Amino acid sequence: MTNHHCVRECLSELADAKHDYIAKGFYAATAADEKRCPALEANQLVEITDVTKQMEVATAGKSERAFHEAERTAKAKIESACGTAADVRCQVVTLYQGGVYDLYKYKRYQDIRVVFAPEESVAFFGGDPDNFTFPRFDLDTAFVRIYDQGKPLHTDSYLKFATKGVKAADIAFTSGNPGGTDRESTLAQLEYQRDVAQPFILNLYSELRGVLNEFGTKGPEEARTSNTQRFSIENSLKAYKGRQLALVQGTLMADKARAEVDFRKRVTADPKLASVDGGAWTAVATAVAHGRDIFVRNTMLERLPSRLSPLLRHAVDLNRYAAEVGKPDGQRLEEYSDANFPALKQQIVAPAPIHVKLEKTVLAWWLTKVREDLGASDDDVRKLMGKRSPEDIAAALVDGTKLTDAKLRARLLAGGAKAIDAYHDPLIDFARILDPLARAVRSDYEDNVKAVITKNSGLIAKARFALEGRSAYPDATFTLRLSYGTVAGYQENGRTVAPVTNFAGAYAHATGRDPFKLPDSWITAEKAVNLDTNLDFASTDDIIGGNSGSPVIGRNGEAIGLIFDGNIQSLGGDFGFDSSVNRAVAVDVTGITEALKSIYHADRLVKELTP
Amino acid sequence: MTNHHCVRECLSELADAKHDYIAKGFYAATAADEKRCPALEANQLVEITDVTKQMEVATAGKSERAFHEAERTAKAKIESACGTAADVRCQVVTLYQGGVYDLYKYKRYQDIRVVFAPEESVAFFGGDPDNFTFPRFDLDTAFVRIYDQGKPLHTDSYLKFATKGVKAADIAFTSGNPGGTDRESTLAQLEYQRDVAQPFILNLYSELRGVLNEFGTKGPEEARTSNTQRFSIENSLKAYKGRQLALVQGTLMADKARAEVDFRKRVTADPKLASVDGGAWTAVATAVAHGRDIFVRNTMLERLPSRLSPLLRHAVDLNRYAAEVGKPDGQRLEEYSDANFPALKQQIVAPAPIHVKLEKTVLAWWLTKVREDLGASDDDVRKLMGKRSPEDIAAALVDGTKLTDAKLRARLLAGGAKAIDAYHDPLIDFARILDPLARAVRSDYEDNVKAVITKNSGLIAKARFALEGRSAYPDATFTLRLSYGTVAGYQENGRTVAPVTNFAGAYAHATGRDPFKLPDSWITAEKAVNLDTNLDFASTDDIIGGNSGSPVIGRNGEAIGLIFDGNIQSLGGDFGFDSSVNRAVAVDVTGITEALKSIYHADRLVKELTP
Repeated sequence: MTNHHCVRECLSELADAKHDYIAKGFYAATAADEKRCPALEANQLVEITDVTKQMEVATAGKSERAFHEAERTAKAKIESACGTAADVRCQVVTLYQGGVYDLYKYKRYQDIRVVFAPEESVAFFGGDPDNFTFPRFDLDTAFVRIYDQGKPLHTDSYLKFATKGVKAADIAFTSGNPGGTDRESTLAQLEYQRDVAQPFILNLYSELRGVLNEFGTKGPEEARTSNTQRFSIENSLKAYKGRQLALVQGTLMADKARAEVDFRKRVTADPKLASVDGGAWTAVATAVAHGRDIFVRNTMLERLPSRLSPLLRHAVDLNRYAAEVGKPDGQRLEEYSDANFPALKQQIVAPAPIHVKLEKTVLAWWLTKVREDLGASDDDVRKLMGKRSPEDIAAALVDGTKLTDAKLRARLLAGGAKAIDAYHDPLIDFARILDPLARAVRSDYEDNVKAVITKNSGLIAKARFALEGRSAYPDATFTLRLSYGTVAGYQENGRTVAPVTNFAGAYAHATGRDPFKLPDSWITAEKAVNLDTNLDFASTDDIIGGNSGSPVIGRNGEAIGLIFDGNIQSLGGDFGFDSSVNRAVAVDVTGITEALKSIYHADRLVKELTP
Repeated sequence: MTNHHCVRECLSELADAKHDYIAKGFYAATAADEKRCPALEANQLVEITDVTKQMEVATAGKSERAFHEAERTAKAKIESACGTAADVRCQVVTLYQGGVYDLYKYKRYQDIRVVFAPEESVAFFGGDPDNFTFPRFDLDTAFVRIYDQGKPLHTDSYLKFATKGVKAADIAFTSGNPGGTDRESTLAQLEYQRDVAQPFILNLYSELRGVLNEFGTKGPEEARTSNTQRFSIENSLKAYKGRQLALVQGTLMADKARAEVDFRKRVTADPKLASVDGGAWTAVATAVAHGRDIFVRNTMLERLPSRLSPLLRHAVDLNRYAAEVGKPDGQRLEEYSDANFPALKQQIVAPAPIHVKLEKTVLAWWLTKVREDLGASDDDVRKLMGKRSPEDIAAALVDGTKLTDAKLRARLLAGGAKAIDAYHDPLIDFARILDPLARAVRSDYEDNVKAVITKNSGLIAKARFALEGRSAYPDATFTLRLSYGTVAGYQENGRTVAPVTNFAGAYAHATGRDPFKLPDSWITAEKAVNLDTNLDFASTDDIIGGNSGSPVIGRNGEAIGLIFDGNIQSLGGDFGFDSSVNRAVAVDVTGITEALKSIYHADRLVKELTP
């Protein structure tokens, strides 16, 4: 059992001109109809071994670069001793920033066949408006079967399907692989996020969203070419909004402030931790203060342009490739390392279409914002823009470049630094003006902000492990962990959000228009469905990106749900967990069974799930 | 001497088909050419009298409504005793929320003639990108002459023009009439502004700005019809950005937190102030907490729609007029009081054109945001939108209404409640669905947030005056006050902003395209101008909206500048003054003289200013 959005790529790969499995769904009426997903695999965790001692011996007495090299070498050695067979995956996981090292051993299954997936319109019912919200009415569900040696895998232990829907206050466990959290941030880092970084991006992306939305109303071509960027910006906006909510509502900041004062006192009082003292926090705060000063410039000149404009990104990548390829690997910008070159080259030569109208719009908008945010009198702005207007520059760059041609890009890349340096057009020459300005603020950031924070965060984390050991959770690491909570609603905008939805709600919310359009199968089956059956529910389980497809397990050890999202407050889980509003969102398994029975008539699957 | 933007309306009123004084500027080469501004007057403050005792006697022992009535009656009596002649204006000003009452007596001059104004393109050089920023390169200057009994007013005392430009660290005084500040807000109120109100509006208006900008690129009609709303949103955005900067940068919040703790201790320690105690702050904080819960709903349903859509506003106003007109004056919504009826009626029947494409765009956008911000499952959202999409609703409302016709609106208004209630079309019926939802959240806000804050802020202000008397400034009241400071740059985005600009900078920033297009007079005169002459400068004077046209006075009592703007940080002056970044922005008088001499050849005026 997993999410529809976890097999979406598989469904897309299996589809052909006659079978649109995304729009129409998929069901294998017989075992023979189950289709293998080309790129899907399942890893089963079979063993965890503590290898802290081995790692400590290997890295003893080393610091900085030597430490990292010794650590990497030791990890590789342990992993390769653990197993190298194709059906084994071994990984040394760092917890507590080096307080603990655990070896995780997985059994790999690579023959995964899809059994059932509903239509995307009901799997992602509500679209962006409902993304990261509750109440939800989604069947974000799919079933795949693991095959071993060409036969369905037999498993003695498995989770039985609950036959009674959840209700408020029911206990709910979740086992899954949360990707990453940032809960060790200092108060200074959180204030920087709350006051500077997040609000700036929220305003910036809000304005861009408005531009893209209205651009899309100009015609069908404009709508089609801007949709992907708009979705991506909308999803980012939701994530930033959720994180910001956590920083300004509830007690997270006040709790952090109190805990930090308390912890610093304990560190100062412990003679063994003299090297950490208050100095680490002060160093982070100083770096963060500098980060505040340069954040806008770094965002506007280095981070944003390549994200906004695929065309400018090609020019930037080619230029930087030419500049970096001749340097020793360790001295290059991170994304131009040997390890990253294959992906980078693939990106440069990929023949994805360039949308010139959209390019002109986003480039002109970006330049307008650069001028506004850095100021018309700023030296960098004057170097970039001279006396021309944003619209004139954008038009000249897009109309004047030949880098829209993937073959030309491939030829320049193949010709290496020499060919690239010899090539001129308005866009790549503009990228050459931008490059030193962007590099200057980037290296200021990397040297004086990022490096200082990394070093001193490590000191703080080690002090914490020395004082608290395993009594607090380490930050998430994309590895298996169990969370617990209860089925629960919450307060939002002064109103109570109830914790459970049902099929009646789905029908009530259907407008017949995207993104609130139910598929025909649901419309046809409305009378056959028991409308009181639970569909989705919210729980206080502590999840984060990576938990997609996690089972929710009830008091009796039965599967009661399937995690597919969190509410917007759950995104604040990046910084800390606030049980008053942070909610995991799941499909109720009784809703899954009811849909399989009454809407999809997936009798073979129903029989297997509820024998 | 005043700002161009202070005589802009006069220039517009004096213009005709042959004379565009906004675009081309104005200069009266002889006294006979000076033109009278139809609506301009000048008030000279001649006397301040303390009338606190009289006011206290009149209001003694009264509270709430009776107090306010007695206060209003006593003020009217004092003002009328002070003078009723046409050339006198008397006003009782309340300071320290009633701690002090002062009677201000002004001599009125109503024959004001314009002598000189430059082209708007140089008066507002840099437009929105440079609005509320520094460095600036604007000649936001105009000269008018006061006439008395048909003759130029003779004044024995006046400010001589400095002949040397300012430099960093020069002392700078400013006399002017700052409009209003909010510096008595409690910490809870500031946190609410920082965390909830300001960020929400910033995101909302940023997105709307993007929509309007891109809407304006659809064609000349779209550009023309959306410009006014876009300018208004951009100006609001700058104001919100500036206020937010003050709340998240610098020490304002930390200072406020410390000062509040200290002040509350002193209040608690003083037996005379037992009634204030900590209770007033707690009451404000509780009201603010409720305000957080209902802010989004109040904004989206009550405050925003009429601001966004002139057409929906007509429907809302007509409906509410019908509902309110029969009630006693005191029980109506504030804007439907007898005192406000004339302006309201004028607004309803005014034949300002309705732009149907723009209306559909902003209404659809508003409904999309209502659904997103309150949630698709929200009861109010479902009542407003049913199962229809935002675009369908907006089109149906705009296409289906006849309220675009000013004559129909006038007829309905003339017919009163009966005629309005009998009239139906999709828009006014939609306003009838919206009304109870909007009223519900508005009255929740007025009763449980605003009223509680007003009452308890008054208690706090009185306690402050009892303890501190006149040792702290009262909030600004649009009356004359003197500020002081020095010519000074500041740090922004990690760079130093220098405090003085010159003519060379103006030419260097000219792009030839709006809003960075210098007028022909400047281009022609470039060689004749001494490019090193100061143009604008920044100072630490504490100003706020209302200070436009204030003279800046130097160490020798000479006029050294003319206030015309503040930097974006100065907008935070609403909450508190931060001398590290808050800057007043002025034209240097030597820049004015240089422009009058070398660009405008305004010899008669130059001779008068620098005899």
